[in-house]
Amino acid sequence: MKFTGARLGIARVVVVGAGFGGLAAAHALARMPVEVMVVDAQNHHTFQPLLYQVATAALNAADIAQSVRGMFHDRDNVDFRLGRVCGLDADRRQVELEGQPPLSYDYLVLAAGATTGYFGIPGVEEHALPLKSLSDALTLRNHLLLQFERAAADPSLVDEGALTVVIVGGGPTGVELAGAIAELRDHVLAKDFPDLDVSRSRIVLVEATDRLLGTFHPRSAMGALHTLRSRGVEVLLDTAVESADPGRVCLAGTEEIATRTMVWAAGVRPSPLADVLGLERGPGGRIVVGADLRVSAHPEVFVIGDLAASHDRSGKPYPQLAPVAIQGGRHAARQIGRLLDGRGTERFRYRDRGTMATIGRNAAVAELPLGLRFRGRVAWLMWLALHLVMLIGFRNRASVLLNWSWNYLTYDRGARLIVNARPLDRGPRPGPG
Amino acid sequence: MKFTGARLGIARVVVVGAGFGGLAAAHALARMPVEVMVVDAQNHHTFQPLLYQVATAALNAADIAQSVRGMFHDRDNVDFRLGRVCGLDADRRQVELEGQPPLSYDYLVLAAGATTGYFGIPGVEEHALPLKSLSDALTLRNHLLLQFERAAADPSLVDEGALTVVIVGGGPTGVELAGAIAELRDHVLAKDFPDLDVSRSRIVLVEATDRLLGTFHPRSAMGALHTLRSRGVEVLLDTAVESADPGRVCLAGTEEIATRTMVWAAGVRPSPLADVLGLERGPGGRIVVGADLRVSAHPEVFVIGDLAASHDRSGKPYPQLAPVAIQGGRHAARQIGRLLDGRGTERFRYRDRGTMATIGRNAAVAELPLGLRFRGRVAWLMWLALHLVMLIGFRNRASVLLNWSWNYLTYDRGARLIVNARPLDRGPRPGPG
Repeated sequence: MKFTGARLGIARVVVVGAGFGGLAAAHALARMPVEVMVVDAQNHHTFQPLLYQVATAALNAADIAQSVRGMFHDRDNVDFRLGRVCGLDADRRQVELEGQPPLSYDYLVLAAGATTGYFGIPGVEEHALPLKSLSDALTLRNHLLLQFERAAADPSLVDEGALTVVIVGGGPTGVELAGAIAELRDHVLAKDFPDLDVSRSRIVLVEATDRLLGTFHPRSAMGALHTLRSRGVEVLLDTAVESADPGRVCLAGTEEIATRTMVWAAGVRPSPLADVLGLERGPGGRIVVGADLRVSAHPEVFVIGDLAASHDRSGKPYPQLAPVAIQGGRHAARQIGRLLDGRGTERFRYRDRGTMATIGRNAAVAELPLGLRFRGRVAWLMWLALHLVMLIGFRNRASVLLNWSWNYLTYDRGARLIVNARPLDRGPRPGPG
Repeated sequence: MKFTGARLGIARVVVVGAGFGGLAAAHALARMPVEVMVVDAQNHHTFQPLLYQVATAALNAADIAQSVRGMFHDRDNVDFRLGRVCGLDADRRQVELEGQPPLSYDYLVLAAGATTGYFGIPGVEEHALPLKSLSDALTLRNHLLLQFERAAADPSLVDEGALTVVIVGGGPTGVELAGAIAELRDHVLAKDFPDLDVSRSRIVLVEATDRLLGTFHPRSAMGALHTLRSRGVEVLLDTAVESADPGRVCLAGTEEIATRTMVWAAGVRPSPLADVLGLERGPGGRIVVGADLRVSAHPEVFVIGDLAASHDRSGKPYPQLAPVAIQGGRHAARQIGRLLDGRGTERFRYRDRGTMATIGRNAAVAELPLGLRFRGRVAWLMWLALHLVMLIGFRNRASVLLNWSWNYLTYDRGARLIVNARPLDRGPRPGPG
């Protein structure tokens, strides 16, 4: 058994979550004299920034996922447990798992991330499609393709919005998804469905504020807006969603839109795990942490990434981005090392190395430190290169490169399959968590 | 609209099924002065001979599937309809679809293939995992990996057969799957689960007759038997399944085997479509056809592949193999051409160009005409090359080549993900058909 604590004096670290933050912590801890147990409700890491490409049939699910066990084959002090955390007994230093014995720890790194937040808008949680997990992406892909098939069989459904996609949320996810769906429609589905009047298809991007990409420079946001509009996406700014039902989305102050496909990219909230931990909550329900990312009442517990209400010296919250989680994971591992050496902890400082969003073929925006901004094809190539490098595992990189090359050269999408694995009917069933 | 029959005098041909036979017919018909409508309950063709590789995480689902619409982008006389055929009005020459208007035809090619046959053995249909569709393959993959994860969390489950896989049926599917699961276990899962005693895992291949690969030469079958046994597969010959429940398989004359994973590769029966067509049934429920593959009562209806009770001059049924379906599809198209020209139909003759089965890395059996037989690495390389050539579409070929190279060089499996798309909750839901 790897994770026994049998070796006297070896500290046991449980890492909850195999997202960017949890994996960064586990990789750093693997090089230290500790035993690590990574727990996740999925058996794989999901490269979330490319989920929208799986949803639009540009990539396979396996291209953006990596087996957690596989990542640590060569590390005999890292183990993995497939399971859902359902509680924390911080006094006894135990993580409670659904249907499994609890896991004891000396140090705990909570990195469960965020899930889709619906803000209680009537009908949205029931009828919107989220995009936070591989399962979400495959469900959205199946759904999108099926709407076109249904309209091909019965063109009267076009009047009911069968070919209309409403994407709510003008952040990077909404912008990237809108651009990708426009490409899928114009270059693939228009050819797949020559009898459908694809010009009657609508892609509507709805944003509640007065601009897209709120965290980017206004010039980048304007660039994204122009590119999306030139590619046939209707962008509605200053527009809030009031309610939704299976056949339509009602917007504040404008007409309602008939659609069978509403994608919700308008917000996140902390993982439901935050509700069962019994730890103090801060802004947006994120868990309150000290400057070193520890929970003050339980100094052996670190919280990182989207789950943590971490902030800079001025009190400004850090953004909910992969780099914050990654740097937080490395920070937590380093602090555990310092504590084991009998030293004190350090303050966590996020170093912003830039952000990017892609809008489609030859179009992206990139913002680097020192005010460097790029747009168009240059930014797009930077985006491609960065995401290839960040993808874990040679096989994934090669497969993504193959798929992207194919898509770029042929305007085709190999993965436009409607496939639905049947629900597992035996044993515990992992789900988003 | 492509499929209107609006062009006066243009014959309309409906092809039911986008398997090997239906696609062969559609491709041949596409070059003729007819309008073609392909109907299938899936939006893609599935390359069934490689399903076991998707089930064992060697390939992605998209690697062995191809969009039907995509295949006919450049053929403006071929259209596709996603739908399930639920009846036939042969007198009015209409195919009835579930929840959609019927399709009229001048000629009909029925190529709906076969589905898993359970022979009414108690508990089998309820508890066995089939392997006939992509959905089956993904379900089996999820299930296999989940059993190992469950055993890792609770080693007592090993006693209950959590690591035991029983495969019923010693034909090519059973042999190939058994070999592939043995490889997955020994080269991937043994490393993924260092704490599990994988030597306690069992892979049991159960065959009711006295030999494997009944359609192959006895020497090929003996070779496959030896290779499987040397790779740790228990092969039980002359053994029938009596019953099954969620925790065990009961075999005639031997002890019962505790297992949570029984795969049923022991037989097929004609597609359920055969039950609703109202056409005469022959041996095994296949539809009776004349020597030219037409239904005698309805000479504008052709039946090909696994759905048809076709046979040679001596009355011996043709085997249920992809080449029979492909040659049948081309034959039906050619006969429709002859009928349109006012000529008579020809007899269908299946030309056997050989059969192959692979047992795993560097091991396969191949039998060509003129008594040529190959085994081991030579046969395996022939198998690889043939399947690469047969795969439709450059992207699939390149992706399969990449995955196979990766698997061979690293003994890794990139696709070992437990992912479950949620059931589609809106609109009609395609399923195996």
